[in-house]
Amino acid sequence: MTGTYRLSDLVERLGGELIGADVAIRQVATLASAQADEISFLANPKYRKQLQETRAGALVLGPAARDMSDKPRILADNPYLYFTRVNALLNPPRRPPAGIHPSAVVAASARIEAGVSIGPLASVGEDSVIGAGTVIEAGCRIGDRVEIGEGGWLHPGVVIYADSRLGKRNIVQANAVIGSDGFGNAWDGSAWLKIPQIGRVLIGDDVEIGASTTIDRGALDDTVIEDGVRLDNQIQIAHNVHIGRHTAMAGCTGVAGSTRIGAYCTFGGSAMILGHLELADRVNVMAGTLVGKSILQAGTYVGQYPVQTHQDWLANASHLRRLDALATKVKELERKGGRNEADQGDLNA
Amino acid sequence: MTGTYRLSDLVERLGGELIGADVAIRQVATLASAQADEISFLANPKYRKQLQETRAGALVLGPAARDMSDKPRILADNPYLYFTRVNALLNPPRRPPAGIHPSAVVAASARIEAGVSIGPLASVGEDSVIGAGTVIEAGCRIGDRVEIGEGGWLHPGVVIYADSRLGKRNIVQANAVIGSDGFGNAWDGSAWLKIPQIGRVLIGDDVEIGASTTIDRGALDDTVIEDGVRLDNQIQIAHNVHIGRHTAMAGCTGVAGSTRIGAYCTFGGSAMILGHLELADRVNVMAGTLVGKSILQAGTYVGQYPVQTHQDWLANASHLRRLDALATKVKELERKGGRNEADQGDLNA
Amino acid sequence: MTGTYRLSDLVERLGGELIGADVAIRQVATLASAQADEISFLANPKYRKQLQETRAGALVLGPAARDMSDKPRILADNPYLYFTRVNALLNPPRRPPAGIHPSAVVAASARIEAGVSIGPLASVGEDSVIGAGTVIEAGCRIGDRVEIGEGGWLHPGVVIYADSRLGKRNIVQANAVIGSDGFGNAWDGSAWLKIPQIGRVLIGDDVEIGASTTIDRGALDDTVIEDGVRLDNQIQIAHNVHIGRHTAMAGCTGVAGSTRIGAYCTFGGSAMILGHLELADRVNVMAGTLVGKSILQAGTYVGQYPVQTHQDWLANASHLRRLDALATKVKELERKGGRNEADQGDLNA
Repeated sequence: MTGTYRLSDLVERLGGELIGADVAIRQVATLASAQADEISFLANPKYRKQLQETRAGALVLGPAARDMSDKPRILADNPYLYFTRVNALLNPPRRPPAGIHPSAVVAASARIEAGVSIGPLASVGEDSVIGAGTVIEAGCRIGDRVEIGEGGWLHPGVVIYADSRLGKRNIVQANAVIGSDGFGNAWDGSAWLKIPQIGRVLIGDDVEIGASTTIDRGALDDTVIEDGVRLDNQIQIAHNVHIGRHTAMAGCTGVAGSTRIGAYCTFGGSAMILGHLELADRVNVMAGTLVGKSILQAGTYVGQYPVQTHQDWLANASHLRRLDALATKVKELERKGGRNEADQGDLNA
Repeated sequence: MTGTYRLSDLVERLGGELIGADVAIRQVATLASAQADEISFLANPKYRKQLQETRAGALVLGPAARDMSDKPRILADNPYLYFTRVNALLNPPRRPPAGIHPSAVVAASARIEAGVSIGPLASVGEDSVIGAGTVIEAGCRIGDRVEIGEGGWLHPGVVIYADSRLGKRNIVQANAVIGSDGFGNAWDGSAWLKIPQIGRVLIGDDVEIGASTTIDRGALDDTVIEDGVRLDNQIQIAHNVHIGRHTAMAGCTGVAGSTRIGAYCTFGGSAMILGHLELADRVNVMAGTLVGKSILQAGTYVGQYPVQTHQDWLANASHLRRLDALATKVKELERKGGRNEADQGDLNA
Repeated sequence: MTGTYRLSDLVERLGGELIGADVAIRQVATLASAQADEISFLANPKYRKQLQETRAGALVLGPAARDMSDKPRILADNPYLYFTRVNALLNPPRRPPAGIHPSAVVAASARIEAGVSIGPLASVGEDSVIGAGTVIEAGCRIGDRVEIGEGGWLHPGVVIYADSRLGKRNIVQANAVIGSDGFGNAWDGSAWLKIPQIGRVLIGDDVEIGASTTIDRGALDDTVIEDGVRLDNQIQIAHNVHIGRHTAMAGCTGVAGSTRIGAYCTFGGSAMILGHLELADRVNVMAGTLVGKSILQAGTYVGQYPVQTHQDWLANASHLRRLDALATKVKELERKGGRNEADQGDLNA
């Protein structure tokens, strides 16, 4: 299914130092499951024991692990990254054939560039542009006046609303939605009045968007996702959010409207970022954390409630509801303690 | 793309007081991005500085801001609401042509009323009714015996299960699901037995439902969403939930089964409401809050764990696991403190 | 719509003891809404008052409730389970006709077994196998080399990526995604490099998966869901997660990569389980709880921040940011308190 490479082929293409026999490998695998025609790697010393037991035919190791195995191996400064490159080499995406499936519905005014593949039962709206070599899988819904750059890949069921723009080499996983109306409602005294959402979604190059993730169009201005951003599954990006380049968010995270997130940030799963905030570059927000104020300094931020047994939680959590009273008692005790010390000072005097 | 209006046209239609030249405007925009043929607004004094710098051709201002600009302007009691009405006037939804796209699959027994638009590759089941003027976009899946009122709009990929009923003028964003089976499982001693979900989803008029939001059908009775409700993206409404009129929920919120939520409530993003609870009218739940008990009084409720730097969090959060012990120590200190004071009283006597 | 059963028919099929007239019933219903031709049940003594007021024609009661009503009734050890079985008997799923809808696109190399129903505008990829009697509803997207066991049911809009395997009798609700790429990214010094996700999703028998739930394929090894698992809506299962048999998760829960969850576990809604953890069998995690470390003992675990009025929360939550300082003060007071007692001992000596 994939090609076969000798270790010397890999070193020639990707660098690194070959030690031992120049064996051929067919696939990448974990230390625990690798077979004789597969290559594995050690990046985390925690798995060192597995290194002794692996049946892998070859290994990628860091310089410090040079002699931890006598198998055929490639030494690389960053074995995880090197292994990823081997993985990518051995497992290129399986492209469907170019061309428009006869069951797809493509507007006559759409511009479909060279080598594009449009799958069964997909649809493309008026005046949209699909860049060269892009893959639109089955059942995708591309609205009117959408622009998708070259080399993109939309998995099945993706919906792109009118006027959205995706850069080059975007990957969008199944059933993601880009360009839906933001949550704009004005109270008119008796009901919510819908605020037309007339901004767009603008996405840079080399962005990946996860399955069932939703990105709302802007209200007046645009929602912007910069180059190289990574969004996992089930993420919600509200209108007019701006996400800086190479920021990565794990699954189930939500970002409320008009928040501006810097570059090179990371977010653990189920984080929630409130609206109209600003997060600096290189801010790391840990999983489950609600960010309720702007964060202007790079660093790692957390707000996780620690898990306990139900019994311990019952005993402890109830005090949260009267923490202020507890703090007041302590202050009072300190005051009295000071007086006592003073009193005793007097007594000792 | 949109029409052009003079300020006097706006005042004639929407009220307000015109001050200055009766200029023509073409579009709405933010203060920061507006051009000479665009109208902007000031509702939040925080943006007053932008008012001085804006290139907008006209403004909507509140009475107190009457003289904060000398540009052509309309005074309105609620400038945000007024601006929204101008926005709606300038940006009517772009309706696709009426008619059934030849690639759609519509059951012969379905009743499709006047002016309905059914997009490419959509499907409508047996005995369903699509009300006059409703738009069903590409790839929507309408089950059997579904009723959708007049003037509705279903964006691409929406799934409506059999027997669901939507009122008039409902807007449903892409890939939302209405009427899926609720999470009903009975433990039979060795496995989960699926409980058939035979209730329906009943949705009132003028409801908007966000992208990828899911609303489960009732188990025995129905799940009910009343008139004017607003649900953002990625929301989960479980079986037999009842949501009162004009309640609004921000993205990623979850409501567990059989909970009854009042009218005019608001929920911040990622709130989680447990099952079998009752929330009164006009309850506001802030973002990220888990509601674990009924709330019978109107008001604002919160349960957010505050974010800190990782270092500070490590120092502080660990104490949550032994808050009960801390409170006990304080009680003990108070007891002793009382005794000490008594002792000293004796000494001083 | 459904058949009619006499109580004696039910007892013959399902066991239990019939007391009173052998009436015919047509449907199941709640105590509050049941009519004369419907059967209801009492499992929770909380609803005992409703028992007196119900218009139900018959009841399922536990032994202890034998004489709480004089209506025709069936006594069963577990009335909830018994009632569920009656429900299932009266409400078999409405199967669409077998056969492939002419608008569906099914690869010539796919193997479609006997009695399969493939709905309008669905698609099935190359070399896939759809087991006997399985229902694939409108607009489902089955990739290449997918295997789905017999008796399955995929609701509209479900996407199954290539190489996924589902066991027998799986039910998948609308717009769920199985087999999407996991969130695998390696930092190459200037950008995220996508890690090819070459593992599969393997799902056992009798699994139900909720609407808009996403299950990522494995990175190198497979993501595994064992027999009888129940996943509610909007759940995210990351790559290489392993979920043991009969575990049930409520809506909006997220499980990060490589975490291994035991059998017979339960998770409340919006729980978040971090990656690379291990959870033992029979662990119950309550709603909204973030699990940040492995749990090796069966039991019930919680980490919920309690909800308060906004005013109370403001007073209390701020102390969380300096809980360590508070604990230090208490320790200091205890130290001094001890010294004071010692001092007083001296004085009293």
